[in-house]
Amino acid sequence: MNAYTKPGDIEARSMALIGEELQDIRARRGTDTARSPLEEAIVRRVIHTTADFDFDENLLFTNHAADRALDLLRGGCTIITDTNMALAGINKTVLASFGGRAFCFMADEDIAQTARTRGVTRAEASVDKAAFLPPPLIYAVGNAPTALLRIAALRGSGGFSPDLVIAVPVGFVNVVEAKELCLGFDIPCIVARGRKGGSAVAAAIVNAMLYFREDRQQTGV
Amino acid sequence: MNAYTKPGDIEARSMALIGEELQDIRARRGTDTARSPLEEAIVRRVIHTTADFDFDENLLFTNHAADRALDLLRGGCTIITDTNMALAGINKTVLASFGGRAFCFMADEDIAQTARTRGVTRAEASVDKAAFLPPPLIYAVGNAPTALLRIAALRGSGGFSPDLVIAVPVGFVNVVEAKELCLGFDIPCIVARGRKGGSAVAAAIVNAMLYFREDRQQTGV
Repeated sequence: MNAYTKPGDIEARSMALIGEELQDIRARRGTDTARSPLEEAIVRRVIHTTADFDFDENLLFTNHAADRALDLLRGGCTIITDTNMALAGINKTVLASFGGRAFCFMADEDIAQTARTRGVTRAEASVDKAAFLPPPLIYAVGNAPTALLRIAALRGSGGFSPDLVIAVPVGFVNVVEAKELCLGFDIPCIVARGRKGGSAVAAAIVNAMLYFREDRQQTGV
Repeated sequence: MNAYTKPGDIEARSMALIGEELQDIRARRGTDTARSPLEEAIVRRVIHTTADFDFDENLLFTNHAADRALDLLRGGCTIITDTNMALAGINKTVLASFGGRAFCFMADEDIAQTARTRGVTRAEASVDKAAFLPPPLIYAVGNAPTALLRIAALRGSGGFSPDLVIAVPVGFVNVVEAKELCLGFDIPCIVARGRKGGSAVAAAIVNAMLYFREDRQQTGV
């Protein structure tokens, strides 16, 4: 089993393959991206997580979101996720090494109760709960467009605004529209335009930044 | 926010959309699938989780795997996952209502120690640990092809064989080959042929079966 026993090597080979295929795909498409090394590293890690090269075109960064997110993470920020899957996927050891922490409120009893009594989704109730946390805060949405719509509503009323939003819910109803809304926010957002995304994508975006090292920026690994 | 507050309705609308698009896609492809209602429900939930219609062609069921998995789950089996993300994604409340349980060993201290001392991956060490559990057992792999290769090796030596394998790792190195190996197993396997898959896909496959109701089989919801 020797050929299979080094996950680090396998990841490096995977990233090299992704880099080669991206070059071919972009040449065929006739467009090149003007991404920063950090943005490129994020795109490649999402493709590594999904084997789906559509994310090369879908992933958008508004208001210097990648640089801003890296600063926030390295400064020790709080991440709120809208699923326990995304929370499970984030490398919390590396996050904690920067002084950061991550939470998901979706399974909390108070959230279930708020959702019932107020007739909102648990995702909306979670946004309301996050509004009481001290900044800086990244809100990462891999599943529930209602979380994004609630963030939009609270921003409009001045009730709450995260420092950065990762807007990558997956789905067929309200998802595309909610992500387009985020593209218009004046706060930095990382958005997977269209239907695709998911909890694993949200976690991969965070991890790409946690693993990013300027001295390895050539490969995007 | 009224239009957005009923996740159950949104899921039903999503599934209806998926059904319509699948009909178009299959008509264009000129092939129809000969899937059972249960298999169809699994395919649709995976598409619901990924917004990726490639899974309509990629998802394969060997040795009546869908029926067998449903029987195992309803009888109260043990599920082992190769990531905590997949474990987080499985609806453990419904699983427990059938008497089942799910574990992921990847973050266990004894697994890290075994991997270090024996020079194997944590995914391989987890398979070895699962071999000591009483059957019936479903092994769900959304990430690590080495888990599938270890299962193949132990089956060859008579050391361990799960009752069913969900073989949906995602990736670029060893992944395609490991899944092809599973297609040749004489135990039932649910396989996402090719590179695509992931922890969310593994969880969606399990949940599709946990949610399946024969009286709703027309819609696959």
